[in-house]
Amino acid sequence: MDNNITWHNNKVSYKERCELLGQKGIAVWFTGLSGSGKSTIAVEVEKKLYELGKYSYILDGDNIRHGINAGLGFSKEDRTENIRRITEIAKLFADAGAVTLVSFITPFKEMRDKAREKVGADRFIEVYVKADYETCAKRDPKGLYKQNIQNFTGKSSPYEVPEDAEVVLDTEKYNVEECVQQILEVILKKIEL
Amino acid sequence: MDNNITWHNNKVSYKERCELLGQKGIAVWFTGLSGSGKSTIAVEVEKKLYELGKYSYILDGDNIRHGINAGLGFSKEDRTENIRRITEIAKLFADAGAVTLVSFITPFKEMRDKAREKVGADRFIEVYVKADYETCAKRDPKGLYKQNIQNFTGKSSPYEVPEDAEVVLDTEKYNVEECVQQILEVILKKIEL
Repeated sequence: MDNNITWHNNKVSYKERCELLGQKGIAVWFTGLSGSGKSTIAVEVEKKLYELGKYSYILDGDNIRHGINAGLGFSKEDRTENIRRITEIAKLFADAGAVTLVSFITPFKEMRDKAREKVGADRFIEVYVKADYETCAKRDPKGLYKQNIQNFTGKSSPYEVPEDAEVVLDTEKYNVEECVQQILEVILKKIEL
Repeated sequence: MDNNITWHNNKVSYKERCELLGQKGIAVWFTGLSGSGKSTIAVEVEKKLYELGKYSYILDGDNIRHGINAGLGFSKEDRTENIRRITEIAKLFADAGAVTLVSFITPFKEMRDKAREKVGADRFIEVYVKADYETCAKRDPKGLYKQNIQNFTGKSSPYEVPEDAEVVLDTEKYNVEECVQQILEVILKKIEL
């Protein structure tokens, strides 16, 4: 009987999960300033995908900051570790077959490049949600720009504008619906089996 | 146009994801000594679920230890943080609608209780994969018992035998196939919509 307990090696593969779900698993990484519209767009994309019978999951401040990353602050070191962990989780969800919608400022090119490398370029879409500092400060949906926050991205902490994002959503030029449509088309093409 | 960028609050719900997938999302937490058969059983359960069209994902040493938990060692503190992170990830996957198969020794009752509490008792099945130290040392599929490893669970580090596991799989009494069948029945009932 003990012979039955042998080392496991035949897991269900990524490909098989994709077939079960009828889609490929990917990470869609929304980067941009606070107030640029990342989460607003991600939530609308999630709804559209759902209506199309596609399986997606959002990773954002709501389920990450108070969970896996509880205890991490806003120093550069902590922000790097924050994004490192999110990257690893996004990799797991993409591997699981989900359209993983990741919505975090991700201010540094190095962080975004690491994420692409870790998840795998073929399963990764970097989306720059574009809006300049003044626009975001005017929108200020969370009331953050009014406060005097340390290490605030775009002000006291840098935001490195993406130069090689797969998609740029210009939220000063297009409204939410138009931005959603633009990224949705790219996603649907990317997850096709 | 700026009015379109408002704070997001209508995500696709857990219930909606479950409907899309045709199942509830849960965490099935396999605990037991090294060599008890946790991963072997988890992998077989994954295959069976796949054959039944059910969506599952395994969290184990292969995709966790070298990913999100890279850098953590085997001290009690590090093992606690290791399990804390796995718990948070299992919570995300259960929330995403997956049958999340978690395979880690998880030696302390406190760790397992925390996991149940975090994920939510209604979405959690603790599975004690039972085999005593001598049996596991004899099986020794990874050759670990032969080595002189520090903080080795069951020897130099304690394993607190579960007293309130939802399921006990006695691998000394039943073979892999029988154990798989036992836990599979519990899972299928639990994930029914």
